[in-house]
Amino acid sequence: LLTCILRPLEVPYRYLFGPGPSNVPPRVLASGSRPIIGHLHPEMYEIMNDIKKGIHYAFQTENNMTIAMSGSGHAAMECAVFNTVEPGESVLIAINGIWGERVAEIAERMGANVHKLVKAPGGHFTNIEIEKVGKHKPVLFFLAHGESSAGLCQPVDGIGDICRKHNCLFLVDTVASLGAAPIFMDKQNIDILYTGSQKALNAPPGTAPISFNDRACHKMFNRKTKPVSYLFDMTHLSNYWGCDGKAVRAYHHTGPVSGFFALRESLAILAEKGLEESWRKHKEVAAYLYRGLEDLGLELFIPDKDLRLPSVTTISIPEGYDWREMLVYIMKHHQMEMTGGLGPSIGMVMRIGLMGYNCEKTNADKALHALADALKNCKKSKA
Amino acid sequence: LLTCILRPLEVPYRYLFGPGPSNVPPRVLASGSRPIIGHLHPEMYEIMNDIKKGIHYAFQTENNMTIAMSGSGHAAMECAVFNTVEPGESVLIAINGIWGERVAEIAERMGANVHKLVKAPGGHFTNIEIEKVGKHKPVLFFLAHGESSAGLCQPVDGIGDICRKHNCLFLVDTVASLGAAPIFMDKQNIDILYTGSQKALNAPPGTAPISFNDRACHKMFNRKTKPVSYLFDMTHLSNYWGCDGKAVRAYHHTGPVSGFFALRESLAILAEKGLEESWRKHKEVAAYLYRGLEDLGLELFIPDKDLRLPSVTTISIPEGYDWREMLVYIMKHHQMEMTGGLGPSIGMVMRIGLMGYNCEKTNADKALHALADALKNCKKSKA
Repeated sequence: LLTCILRPLEVPYRYLFGPGPSNVPPRVLASGSRPIIGHLHPEMYEIMNDIKKGIHYAFQTENNMTIAMSGSGHAAMECAVFNTVEPGESVLIAINGIWGERVAEIAERMGANVHKLVKAPGGHFTNIEIEKVGKHKPVLFFLAHGESSAGLCQPVDGIGDICRKHNCLFLVDTVASLGAAPIFMDKQNIDILYTGSQKALNAPPGTAPISFNDRACHKMFNRKTKPVSYLFDMTHLSNYWGCDGKAVRAYHHTGPVSGFFALRESLAILAEKGLEESWRKHKEVAAYLYRGLEDLGLELFIPDKDLRLPSVTTISIPEGYDWREMLVYIMKHHQMEMTGGLGPSIGMVMRIGLMGYNCEKTNADKALHALADALKNCKKSKA
Repeated sequence: LLTCILRPLEVPYRYLFGPGPSNVPPRVLASGSRPIIGHLHPEMYEIMNDIKKGIHYAFQTENNMTIAMSGSGHAAMECAVFNTVEPGESVLIAINGIWGERVAEIAERMGANVHKLVKAPGGHFTNIEIEKVGKHKPVLFFLAHGESSAGLCQPVDGIGDICRKHNCLFLVDTVASLGAAPIFMDKQNIDILYTGSQKALNAPPGTAPISFNDRACHKMFNRKTKPVSYLFDMTHLSNYWGCDGKAVRAYHHTGPVSGFFALRESLAILAEKGLEESWRKHKEVAAYLYRGLEDLGLELFIPDKDLRLPSVTTISIPEGYDWREMLVYIMKHHQMEMTGGLGPSIGMVMRIGLMGYNCEKTNADKALHALADALKNCKKSKA
């Protein structure tokens, strides 16, 4: 009965060149295996303060209300919506892939009045379209900066101002884009921003940085009802992270101590490298990958180069091929993960992610070599 | 500005002899630093299946609907309540410490009609008292098996039958007791059981095993409303964990891959040692600790030996001492964590936890030596 768990743990080595999780560099892996300390020890508070500073830099913000969730990007999503929206209030969600769909689902469940602005995967939203935001009098407008399911990087300049004009909070998802494409939380008037640990930050999945500015804090700390989740209630999380100005941190939940060690190191690596250099590198390696893909006769899914997400590249599925078969072939013969679409983009694209630590031309070469091999060996005979 | 995060990560070594997290053994730490694979790779499914088998053994259940949450014990708490209770339904919560208070708070937020059965910390509930459960027609009755804030191990025999008679689900918290005190989910007719990773299992915090039997599944999969959290919705989590019989697992959220490696190894260690031996050892070391504490003139907070939680021992705060000062002294001079009370037991007790890997007489000796030293050096001069 128990024979399976009494066998040694087996973990194969994989090139994680999908949309995440990405490979974790040795320094980050090593930090996650340090002997743990208590979640409420003073040294842990120091590490949490370091994480906060690292997020400030990565998000380009000075917001005091900056923490990491004890959970994946979805925990940050639910935290953002649960805390800033009350049942019956209107929200507007821009949907051009899976992330908007998810936020809409989350907002519907907690009783918000959900309005949707929908485009097919690959489409982006113009500021003129977003100007109509006011019509529904939403308290929150959601947009994914890195729409990884389509490989799109949505421009955000000017949208924060539109939201302010309409007295609406601007919530932005940068799970797949942070560290890979420029974002300036404060300068761009983004009210709530979150990301994940397992993309360009290269930490294991399980933590998710999130930040709220004063406008967002004003809304979430002056609500009439309690957020529906105790675990994700920012009143408690802000105390746990030392953001509420109180001298004593009360026990709320037990944070993932090892996960916070790893997140600290991944943020430190980004700070050492520098954001400008990280953005430049992602753009350079992505451009190199685009050329290689075109040389293989493959078609980039997002025609406009400036709208492509540098961390996750999407290609149209080549004619005469079954995308599932190609992915299985690449995994089997190259120990390499690439993936298909996600949510609305399933069956439309294949995705190649070269993020953070993985973002090197040598890795682009490996990915191109694997794709060339699959193109040679997976061609369907005509029916 | 960034100097703090550019310094090397510093993590001191600590004896974690509080109520958790406990020290993590080298094998479990090492597994958490293995290079990661994708959360939806077939090898990851194997590891998740191993975890499921390990939970089956630890919980003494054969429930198909057995998973690990991507979060701490509070995530399991919210998952249990969110999925099995609908807004407006009645629940009854036994409160004799912090855990019942937390479940009541969670149930109130999601709109349940919450009834409470309250005792002072240290008190336990008799089956005769629980027989009155039917009065409120609850759909769920909550009880903490390991009430770590008071050091109490609540008997559960017969309560499952009472709940069945009243058509009510029986939810039990074993975060602090699993592996330390006997629990038999199936034999004891427990409908929903959860635990944490960071107590007697000695994995880092961040994962939480939970299991639902057929009665619980019938209730949660025949509800009229969707659970308020998408992230904790068992419809999706059961698919992610391969419990719903479907051939394909859809993307729901990204699980903490490294955390699952560590949880697998911690469950494997328990399976290798055996539950009987683990229970025996905790009882033996606890009895040894009790004698040593009494020799120091300290008073055990739970008078009845049979009601003491073997993993977490509570002592009354000795007269003439400030408990905070003692704890700070022990941390400073012995690099050892002990803690005060929690929630309603704050100011009433001090707590010493010797759990799993830490559960050795040599560690009890270290704890007693540190306490003796603190008793010698922290005595208040009479005012």
